[in-house]
Amino acid sequence: MATRVLALAALLIASQPAFASEAAFTPDDLHTAAYLRDLANGGSAAYDIVESLTTEVGPRMAGSDADPRAVAWAQAKFRELGFDRVWTEPVSFPLWRRGAEQAQVLSPYPQPLHITTLGLSVGSNGPLEGEVVAFADLAALSAAPAGSLDGKIAFIANRMTRSRDGKGYGPAVAARSRGASEASGKGALALLIRSIGTDHARMPHTGALQYAEGNDAPPRIPAAALSNPDADLLANMVRRGQPVRLRLNIDAGVVGEATSYNVIGEITGSEQPEQVVLIGGHLDSWDLGTGAIDDASGVAITMAAGAMIGDLKTPPKRSIRVIAFANEEQGLFGGKAYAEQHKTQISQHILGAESDFGAGRIYALRAGTSDATRPTIAAIGEVLEPLGITYESEGGGPGPDIIAVAGRGMAWAQLAQDGGDYFDYHHTANDTLDKIDPRALDQQVAAYAVLAYLAAQTDGGFGSAAKPEAP
Amino acid sequence: MATRVLALAALLIASQPAFASEAAFTPDDLHTAAYLRDLANGGSAAYDIVESLTTEVGPRMAGSDADPRAVAWAQAKFRELGFDRVWTEPVSFPLWRRGAEQAQVLSPYPQPLHITTLGLSVGSNGPLEGEVVAFADLAALSAAPAGSLDGKIAFIANRMTRSRDGKGYGPAVAARSRGASEASGKGALALLIRSIGTDHARMPHTGALQYAEGNDAPPRIPAAALSNPDADLLANMVRRGQPVRLRLNIDAGVVGEATSYNVIGEITGSEQPEQVVLIGGHLDSWDLGTGAIDDASGVAITMAAGAMIGDLKTPPKRSIRVIAFANEEQGLFGGKAYAEQHKTQISQHILGAESDFGAGRIYALRAGTSDATRPTIAAIGEVLEPLGITYESEGGGPGPDIIAVAGRGMAWAQLAQDGGDYFDYHHTANDTLDKIDPRALDQQVAAYAVLAYLAAQTDGGFGSAAKPEAP
Repeated sequence: MATRVLALAALLIASQPAFASEAAFTPDDLHTAAYLRDLANGGSAAYDIVESLTTEVGPRMAGSDADPRAVAWAQAKFRELGFDRVWTEPVSFPLWRRGAEQAQVLSPYPQPLHITTLGLSVGSNGPLEGEVVAFADLAALSAAPAGSLDGKIAFIANRMTRSRDGKGYGPAVAARSRGASEASGKGALALLIRSIGTDHARMPHTGALQYAEGNDAPPRIPAAALSNPDADLLANMVRRGQPVRLRLNIDAGVVGEATSYNVIGEITGSEQPEQVVLIGGHLDSWDLGTGAIDDASGVAITMAAGAMIGDLKTPPKRSIRVIAFANEEQGLFGGKAYAEQHKTQISQHILGAESDFGAGRIYALRAGTSDATRPTIAAIGEVLEPLGITYESEGGGPGPDIIAVAGRGMAWAQLAQDGGDYFDYHHTANDTLDKIDPRALDQQVAAYAVLAYLAAQTDGGFGSAAKPEAP
Repeated sequence: MATRVLALAALLIASQPAFASEAAFTPDDLHTAAYLRDLANGGSAAYDIVESLTTEVGPRMAGSDADPRAVAWAQAKFRELGFDRVWTEPVSFPLWRRGAEQAQVLSPYPQPLHITTLGLSVGSNGPLEGEVVAFADLAALSAAPAGSLDGKIAFIANRMTRSRDGKGYGPAVAARSRGASEASGKGALALLIRSIGTDHARMPHTGALQYAEGNDAPPRIPAAALSNPDADLLANMVRRGQPVRLRLNIDAGVVGEATSYNVIGEITGSEQPEQVVLIGGHLDSWDLGTGAIDDASGVAITMAAGAMIGDLKTPPKRSIRVIAFANEEQGLFGGKAYAEQHKTQISQHILGAESDFGAGRIYALRAGTSDATRPTIAAIGEVLEPLGITYESEGGGPGPDIIAVAGRGMAWAQLAQDGGDYFDYHHTANDTLDKIDPRALDQQVAAYAVLAYLAAQTDGGFGSAAKPEAP
C-alpha cells in the first residue's frame, strides 16, 4: 500500500524511473503482472486441483499401480486447464515395494512400536531379533567401534528442530540417508531412526535412504523410522538400563525397474516460443499419505499459475512450461531425466522455479541468475511485495527437481515458503488435504504467475547461473 | 492471591468465620489441606507414574496379554507409594479381540482408507464389498427407508465439535454406539463412521459400540471408524456422484470371557477407617495408544494424591481409597463390579470422585451431595481457588466408573478438567506420553489431595446423592 503512494509521488517527480520494475518492464507488462497477482490472490484453481489429485488418485508412489493413474490425471488436468501443448517424457528408476512393517518390544516391556520402512530399504527376510543400542545422533553411531553392534539393532534418537525455512532438515536427515550403512559397518542387523519430523503425532515419517556403494560397502540392512512418540518411548525404555530386545519384521525391497513419465503442459509464447520459463512440482508422492502438501500443492500452484497466464488475451512472449515431475521422492529421477533429455536446450530455459516445500505462504524471492540481471529479479520482487514477499539478494537454491537443469546452467528463482509446519506432516500418512489453507495456495499462485509471466517478458533473460553438475 | 489478602483482613475483623472453610473445617485441617495443595502443585509423582505405566506396560486393553501386567504394575506401584493396604477384586467381561482392519476404495478412485474397528464389533468373515451410502448424521440414517441399504455400506459423516467440557461428545458418539444396529436394520452390510474426535490427524478413533439386544434386533454387522481426513476424503468422493465401492476386511469379535481386577490401594483412616473417600481412574486402555491421557493420567493423579495424604505425619480421620478400575472402556465393568461387590457398604463411602477426562487442568469443582452439606463443598472450593478452580453449585456428574456406586447413593464430586484437546487424542494411537504437561498433572494432584483429605476430615460426610440405578 505504501508502495502505491510512493509510485504516485514518483510519477509526479521523476523522469528517471524511480522503480526497478519500471526500468525492467513495460507498463503493459507490469499492468498484466499486477492483474495476474491480484486475480490469483483473490481466488485460484489451486486448491481444487489439489483436492482432485488427492481424492481421485491419492497416494501415488513411483512405480505403484497409482503412478500411471497420476500421469493420466496430470495430462487430463493440463488439457482441462487449457494448456496449448501437453506431453509426457519417460523416466525410469528402480521399482521399490513396501510390504509388512512391524516392530515389537520383546523385553523387558513388551509392546508394539509404530514404524515405517525407509524408502529403498531392503527387507529383513522374516522377523529378526536383537538388542537395541541407542545413539544420540549419527555422529555418535559413526564413532562406535567396529564390531560393537554385531547382532544388535542400532537406534538413532536425534530430533529435528522446527524452523520457517526447514534448516533443521539437513542435519537431521543424514541419519535417514546414511544411517543404515553406518550401522551395518559396525555390525548391526538393522537400523531404527527417530522420524525426521517436527511433530508429536504417532505417525512415522518415511523417506529414502542411500546405501553406501562399492566393493567395500557394508551389507545392506533394513531400516525404518519410529514415530516421535515411539522414539521417546524406546529412549525411555533404554534409559532404564536393562537390555531392550526388539523383533522387527520388514518386508520391502527393490523388485525390478519401472518407467513413469514427466508430464508437461505448455503455454506457447508469442515471440520466442522455443524459449521457456520452467515451473513445476513433482507428481509422485510417498505411499503413506495422499501427498497433498508433498507435492500436489506444488503441481497445483504451478499448473494454476500457468493456466492463468494462458488465459490472458495476449500470450506471453516466451513459453511457460509447467512440469509435473516423476519420482522425485526416491532420487530426483524426473528432474535428472528432464535435464538429460533437454541437455542441448538448456540455454533456451530462461529461468526455472519449483514449488516443493508444502502449502505455506511465500515470504521471500531469491534467485541464482547472472549478476547483470539482478535488477530484473529485484524488479519482479517489487511486484511481489503486496503479497508479503521480500526480495532477498542472497541465499536460496533451486528446487530438487530443477537442481539437475540448474546444474547445467539454467538460471533459477526460489519463491521461499513458510515451512514451519511442513515437517509435521512430511512423508507421513498425515499428509492430507485438510492440512492446506486454500488462501495460502492462492497467494502462491499469484507469486508464480507474476514470476513466470515477467520472466517470459524480459528482453534478455537471466543469463546462466552455472552450478556444479548435479549428481 | 487476592484470597490471602482477604483472609488476613478477615482474621483482623471477624468473630464469625468469614469463610465457609473456617466454618466447616478446623484450622489444622485447613492448614494441612493448604500444605498438600501447595506441595503437590509444586511438583508431584503423577507424571512419573504415567511415564512408568505407559513405558513399562503400554497399551493394556481389557483381556489382552498386557492386562495382567497392568494389574501387577498397579499393585507394585501402590506398594511403592506406601499405601497401607493393597488388594485386588475380580472383574469379568466378554473378551473382545481385534485382528486385521483394512478398507480400500475399489472404484472409481482406488486408494486405501485408514480405519479402526469399533470395540465389540463383529468381524466381516473375510472381505466384503459394497457401495457407500453417506448420511449426514445418525438421525438421517435412522430416517432411511427399511431395506434401502440392502447390500450397502453405510457411512455416517458428522463431525464432533470441540469444547472445554467435551459437550460435543454425547451428540456425536451416538453414531458409534448405535449406528451399527441402525444401519443393519436398514439392510446394510457394514457401518463406517467418521471418528468421534476433534482432530485433523490421520488416526481413527476406536471406542465401544452397543448392538441392539433382543429377538427382533437386526443382525450384528461389522463397524469401523475412519480418521477425520479419511472421512473428508470419502465424503469428497461420494459428492462427485458416481457410485463409490469399498472393500472392507475386519477381523474382530468376542471370543470368550476374561477376568481382570480392580486394583485398590488404601490409606487407613485414624478415626473411622471403615469409612472411605473413593478416588480413582481406570487402569485399562484401548489397544491403539499407550493410554497416557485415557487413563494413566487419572490413575496417576489419584495415586499420587492418595500417597501424599499417606505421607502426612497425622493420618486422615477416614480412609482414602484409590481404585484403578478394570475395563472401563468396553462397558464400565470395573465400576459396576465394585458397586456390586460393595453394595452393602455404600453408606460407608463418604464421597467419590474419578479422574477420567485426560490430563488438562481442573477449572471447576461440582458435586452431587445432600443440600445440607453444600456449604462443606463450597468450603473445599475455597481451598481450591488458588489453583484456578471455581466452585460451581450446579451441573456436573460422577466419572464413568463411579456412576454405579453413585447410582446406589454415594455422594460424588467432580473436579472438571479442561478437555479442549482431549478428543484430539482420545481412543487413538496418538494417546501417548508426550501429550501431557507435567505441571497440569501436578495441579490436579493438588486438587484431588485437597478434596480427598478434607472430605475425610468432615464431621458428617456428604449425605447421599441418590441417582437412578446405573445401567
